[in-house]
Amino acid sequence: MEKIIEALKEEAILARKRSIKSLFNSGADRIDLFTAEHGSFKIDYSKQNISSQGWSLLLDYYYKSKIDHKIHALFSGKPVNVTENRPALHFALRAPKDVRSLPKHSSIVADVHDELEAMALIVRKIRKRKWRGYSGKAITNIVSLGVGGSELGPLLVCDALQEIGSSIGDSIKLHFVSSMDGTQISQLLEVLDPERTLFIISSKSFTTVDTFYNVNTALKWLTSYSGSIELAKNHHFIGVSASQEKMEAWGIRKENQLIFWNWVGGRFSLWSTIGLPIAIKYGMDVFYELLEGGYEMDFHFKNSTPESCLPTVLALISFWNSSFLEISANAVLPYDGRLKLLPNYLSQLEMESNGKAVSVNGTEVRFKTSPIIWGELGPNAQHAFYQLLHQGTQDVSCDFISTVKRYHNGARPDVEADFLYQQQSLSLANCFAQSSVLAFGDIFAEKEEINPHKRYRGNQPSTTLLIEELTPRILGSLIALYEHKTYVLSCLWDINPFDQWGVELGKSISEEALRAIHEPNYRNKFDDSTKWLLTQVSDWSSKDDTNK
Amino acid sequence: MEKIIEALKEEAILARKRSIKSLFNSGADRIDLFTAEHGSFKIDYSKQNISSQGWSLLLDYYYKSKIDHKIHALFSGKPVNVTENRPALHFALRAPKDVRSLPKHSSIVADVHDELEAMALIVRKIRKRKWRGYSGKAITNIVSLGVGGSELGPLLVCDALQEIGSSIGDSIKLHFVSSMDGTQISQLLEVLDPERTLFIISSKSFTTVDTFYNVNTALKWLTSYSGSIELAKNHHFIGVSASQEKMEAWGIRKENQLIFWNWVGGRFSLWSTIGLPIAIKYGMDVFYELLEGGYEMDFHFKNSTPESCLPTVLALISFWNSSFLEISANAVLPYDGRLKLLPNYLSQLEMESNGKAVSVNGTEVRFKTSPIIWGELGPNAQHAFYQLLHQGTQDVSCDFISTVKRYHNGARPDVEADFLYQQQSLSLANCFAQSSVLAFGDIFAEKEEINPHKRYRGNQPSTTLLIEELTPRILGSLIALYEHKTYVLSCLWDINPFDQWGVELGKSISEEALRAIHEPNYRNKFDDSTKWLLTQVSDWSSKDDTNK
Repeated sequence: MEKIIEALKEEAILARKRSIKSLFNSGADRIDLFTAEHGSFKIDYSKQNISSQGWSLLLDYYYKSKIDHKIHALFSGKPVNVTENRPALHFALRAPKDVRSLPKHSSIVADVHDELEAMALIVRKIRKRKWRGYSGKAITNIVSLGVGGSELGPLLVCDALQEIGSSIGDSIKLHFVSSMDGTQISQLLEVLDPERTLFIISSKSFTTVDTFYNVNTALKWLTSYSGSIELAKNHHFIGVSASQEKMEAWGIRKENQLIFWNWVGGRFSLWSTIGLPIAIKYGMDVFYELLEGGYEMDFHFKNSTPESCLPTVLALISFWNSSFLEISANAVLPYDGRLKLLPNYLSQLEMESNGKAVSVNGTEVRFKTSPIIWGELGPNAQHAFYQLLHQGTQDVSCDFISTVKRYHNGARPDVEADFLYQQQSLSLANCFAQSSVLAFGDIFAEKEEINPHKRYRGNQPSTTLLIEELTPRILGSLIALYEHKTYVLSCLWDINPFDQWGVELGKSISEEALRAIHEPNYRNKFDDSTKWLLTQVSDWSSKDDTNK
Repeated sequence: MEKIIEALKEEAILARKRSIKSLFNSGADRIDLFTAEHGSFKIDYSKQNISSQGWSLLLDYYYKSKIDHKIHALFSGKPVNVTENRPALHFALRAPKDVRSLPKHSSIVADVHDELEAMALIVRKIRKRKWRGYSGKAITNIVSLGVGGSELGPLLVCDALQEIGSSIGDSIKLHFVSSMDGTQISQLLEVLDPERTLFIISSKSFTTVDTFYNVNTALKWLTSYSGSIELAKNHHFIGVSASQEKMEAWGIRKENQLIFWNWVGGRFSLWSTIGLPIAIKYGMDVFYELLEGGYEMDFHFKNSTPESCLPTVLALISFWNSSFLEISANAVLPYDGRLKLLPNYLSQLEMESNGKAVSVNGTEVRFKTSPIIWGELGPNAQHAFYQLLHQGTQDVSCDFISTVKRYHNGARPDVEADFLYQQQSLSLANCFAQSSVLAFGDIFAEKEEINPHKRYRGNQPSTTLLIEELTPRILGSLIALYEHKTYVLSCLWDINPFDQWGVELGKSISEEALRAIHEPNYRNKFDDSTKWLLTQVSDWSSKDDTNK
């Protein structure tokens, strides 16, 4: 193992000195070696700064680390979430009813499908306009209250599938509310009709403070119209949580409770009843297609050799870039407006999972782990931060993502269909052109001038992921692809991707700080900086009070 | 100069070895030295990893670099955009009518105000429901077509001011369309009424390809209803551009043309007629308040010593973090939902301006320049990527931004006002708690356990910016604050922040790639990777055709 790591480090020294261009000079077999495909996905990673020797070493590292055992441990329900001593079974959420692959957790798949049926009942009731508010009027607006994993997955999918149409059309509107400070809820409450508004409270613990402050505001508003808390709670709130007890205690009616399980991490939960907004918007059939797509990727992941396994290929490249080339940032750049929220989603999935410095056994990790994952629609980012990618001083690895088939085949009968098809072609062309210039710099440009301000250094590595088209099924596969990439990466780093201890302390200190806002004496508990900040808040606020 | 740089490098070596906590042990004067305030802003940068000696050196560097001369050059209209040999006069866009501070460009302020008046005419016509479509019906939907600087500024301001209300209310709706691939325009055209829809084409050059592909789709759609291109162009398109000639040629009616000038960079242009959507949404009075706020910050910037000048303080800290501590990422974390788009906006402003590696005189810059600027609403990011900030392996400097006064004083008469006020307090508490834990780690936590998975290393530096409240005027000052920070940074690095050569080559290669999508023979022009990608597109597309 040590020998492989040393060899990889030496490879990295070579890589830093060479151009990506030079890797292409050795012949066309680079494309054979550094592309992979499966189903509706094709990956080109030839523009990464990795040689065939380097790639062999990465595969050696993969085998020596026994990643295959770790993949097996995941799928057989072993407690891979070691710090919380439980399995991570998100993949079971998308397993077909008749799958019997989890002997130790034999009832899980059945439980999942029971819950999907409970969800289907609620979805049907809403979509058939049979859900009525306290005064008997049909619901027209649904507000999903949730944050982090309870929001990002449903939001991504709802946005990404916009072009498949929605049979609820405009008669039911769906809103997402997460912002702690009330920005979203306060705007919504000004325009919504309380008699026709339904709230979904999505919270694994059913105690998430951000969410419950929004819930309290919503409940106060609703009750001021309904005149009764009970009426409001009974007719206007659905709960989605892993704690049936807490839902019960809050007052969610039995038939309005949807559960999921402790063995699902929030950032892996869109496949569970957390996906309720997706199913409301597009129907259960679409939700099942999404699950099938996820399951197909599970199958591919379990049954492929590492070199042909898409999640593994992406993970090995990320491992190389972060841990050996020490590239600390990874830009996610979709060239499809429907995937606008994918960078955000992956930001949580990867950074919360693999933003760790301690290995499974408690020792410090010897490598740099997750890079900064951020991004924006590629064409928009061309007008924003590509300047830095092309001519700045920071090393960034880029993931270009593009859908190929769109607006084809009369998918749009409108007069403007041809123009939309041209927009799609333009978008593909931009995707390819940018990755080429990032890798190779200005070698293809006319060189009449050598003005240094107009030079492009090149050598920014990138991977391009082509997606055949964006159906619910393929979207499901895409999301599962990144889930498994994240898992393989965690295995390469030997860290636990399923905990998130790093978010706990901030929560408890926030409670203290909240108390100190209202109680000046309590401020002494804090450092000088926090004391100063708290005092400024008092000063400004009291100035405000005297103006009353 | 060399001596200062050497001393700063030595300071950086010390800084890497020490904890931020240790800087606080030397006494409470740290707060005096490392906080600054002006008007409605207070900045606490005491949790940066900078000592008082280091700070003195940075100020020495500032003086030795003659930044004051460079600021004077900017405001006196010198050609500070050296590579394009022109001045950068965005600040003149917010100068009051009677200002006479630009002798060499004496007519500029008058021109600006003439154009503001032309804009006011259009705004009034729309807001009074006097703008009518080809069939005589009043306009109810406005679609702003623009990308990059033509979108990000207006979008930020329109979103940030949502709570001041809008007298156009729901009777006129405003939409922004930028995505090259048609995602946004195709969804909109399905629901809009062509007789009542007005398009604004915002493009400095009036040739931006992303925008004009959207324009073509919109025009095709509109013409299919109006039956006449002329009718469509005359009644449904406003142009905002620095090229009157191109607007003329495209067919924008004289009275529907709004101009701005070549001396305004796109990312500095929201103060110009590019701000039209803001004025439509909130009225000219609000737009003038925004300008006044910007002008106030200009005055502060020109007339303060560096230690008391907010833009300069932020710039010196960024210079220190990027160029000496080599921290390559800077997270922008607003704790105010109305500033959700600020990270995006600053991402363009700073990365496009200062993502450069070549100094003004054409030599390579000796420092790392702009870091990656990215971010998300702070409370949401707590549930997404804060895990990496707290326990990951990447160094990140953070900018916490919070508004203090909100939902006070009967600003919201609703029953839920008290609850919103509590949400605001919770948000402030979270802001302070997170920055404290990031800086100091788990020193305030109970230590009964030393489980390494639950340790917080601390030592992530941050600055906290407190804003008294978010009015149009203060928002204007806030945006100008970051513009000037960006300029000072460029001066410290001796680069030109006003050009963006790094985005040019991609444009021309995209045209080639677009041709190669349709002409297989043309693909040989490209590298092997691009050839392969182009071929996959053909393969999938032809598969699609045979299925017809």
